Amino acid sequence: MAELITIEDPQDPRLRDFVALTDVELRRRREPEEGLFIAEGEKVIRRARQSGYRMRSMLLSSKWIDVMRDVIDEVPAPVYAVAPELAEQVTGYHVHRGAIASMQRKPLPEVDELLSTGRRIAVLEGLTDHANIGAVYRSAAALGVDALLLSPDCADPLYRRAVKVSMGAVFTVPYAVLESWPQDLEKVRRAGYDILALTPHHDAVPLSEVSEERLRRCAVMLGSEGHGLSPEALRAADEWVRIPMSHGIDSLNIAAAAAISFYALAEQAKD
Amino acid sequence: MAELITIEDPQDPRLRDFVALTDVELRRRREPEEGLFIAEGEKVIRRARQSGYRMRSMLLSSKWIDVMRDVIDEVPAPVYAVAPELAEQVTGYHVHRGAIASMQRKPLPEVDELLSTGRRIAVLEGLTDHANIGAVYRSAAALGVDALLLSPDCADPLYRRAVKVSMGAVFTVPYAVLESWPQDLEKVRRAGYDILALTPHHDAVPLSEVSEERLRRCAVMLGSEGHGLSPEALRAADEWVRIPMSHGIDSLNIAAAAAISFYALAEQAKD
Repeated sequence: MAELITIEDPQDPRLRDFVALTDVELRRRREPEEGLFIAEGEKVIRRARQSGYRMRSMLLSSKWIDVMRDVIDEVPAPVYAVAPELAEQVTGYHVHRGAIASMQRKPLPEVDELLSTGRRIAVLEGLTDHANIGAVYRSAAALGVDALLLSPDCADPLYRRAVKVSMGAVFTVPYAVLESWPQDLEKVRRAGYDILALTPHHDAVPLSEVSEERLRRCAVMLGSEGHGLSPEALRAADEWVRIPMSHGIDSLNIAAAAAISFYALAEQAKD
Repeated sequence: MAELITIEDPQDPRLRDFVALTDVELRRRREPEEGLFIAEGEKVIRRARQSGYRMRSMLLSSKWIDVMRDVIDEVPAPVYAVAPELAEQVTGYHVHRGAIASMQRKPLPEVDELLSTGRRIAVLEGLTDHANIGAVYRSAAALGVDALLLSPDCADPLYRRAVKVSMGAVFTVPYAVLESWPQDLEKVRRAGYDILALTPHHDAVPLSEVSEERLRRCAVMLGSEGHGLSPEALRAADEWVRIPMSHGIDSLNIAAAAAISFYALAEQAKD
């Protein structure tokens, strides 16, 4: 059972995990370094726990104590009850979801381990927008993508906004970060996946025409919103695939493109 | 050719169209009432003009004058050159895209007129998030949706954030607002469209199994992110359709669901 501790001093060092949540630069550095991430709101906090993340501490305003009573009773972590004004002073914003938890990160799985099972995965290159990362995880969870691999320059999927947009899917879709880019794509290929690069290029094959053989085990690779896949990533692919688009339209948003490609590959694998 | 006017007083009444752009409540009321909307950034301003919207006035910082020179030379509207600090004082935020234009709205087409051509349209119920509205328009433009119909409680597609997220697709995809909801769906049916309600309900037909007959002319109907389609809208549909999802996942984000359904219906109509 958690201790329920009332705190009235915004400088209290026990609140350190929750300081300046709106300072993206600071949090981006601190959270991975210190091995924590922030889960916000009742639903997301519960999902993080169900996925086996250990709670370091929780901050809530007193009217949320009853809602979170069962969690408070179960976790050994300290729970800090504070006034909404104090929560705002500490975090930098009005915490309208009432409860925020600091959770302990877990080590990511090894790439080879992740690749050993599964049939359909996705590889992301250079996605730096947290909302886009979160949206891709949410679609991956809904559409049966077995795992995600990220290039080294992708944004952190456990960053607060990514967690929120994903509705907790960042906790359930297994993922790993490739160390050498794009060299480590070779690991994907060695594990038996065909690498399909999603690109609007006119030489690419429409998604609906990807061969059965490629669908047996495949990794769909998606690039950043601004520039798409890099020339190096495109060169490393086994095939270029595209979503047929109306004349004169340059592109879909990355979250939409991801959702469509996950759906299309799942549907075609059924045939 | 536009007059280029330097303004140094943030209270100057000529800047009225640009006042308090971050005050969502105020702008939501004022913009439709006064028949204007805001286009932000070079690309979006150009797209609005190409789509036949008349410029009322433009606000820019002096270093953007050269970039926008051709536009300034062409439009008869006044162009206000201001310091970045003054732009921020007036609008309420740091205008990093350098130029914002106030554009004149055009009357929306009649529903019956919109329905008379086209083969595949989408109907949106209760979408109140501007980013979602923008994302749906962008996907609609890319994936060949001929028109959008909105329920009366949908957010304004010409609101600044929707315009931005849509990358200007709100200017090119024709749309109208239904007056009586859901009664006006009868107009859609009378025009020969089968109404397909997208819902996660297990009784719904998977998108890939929609019959050829329904695909000949169809309207896919999407509900709000929070609650999906209302019971009234579901009752008014000809068929319920669903995106097959992994066990235990409640739903996709509305923008992802829209993109997938637009893609799937376009692909199947090709067969």
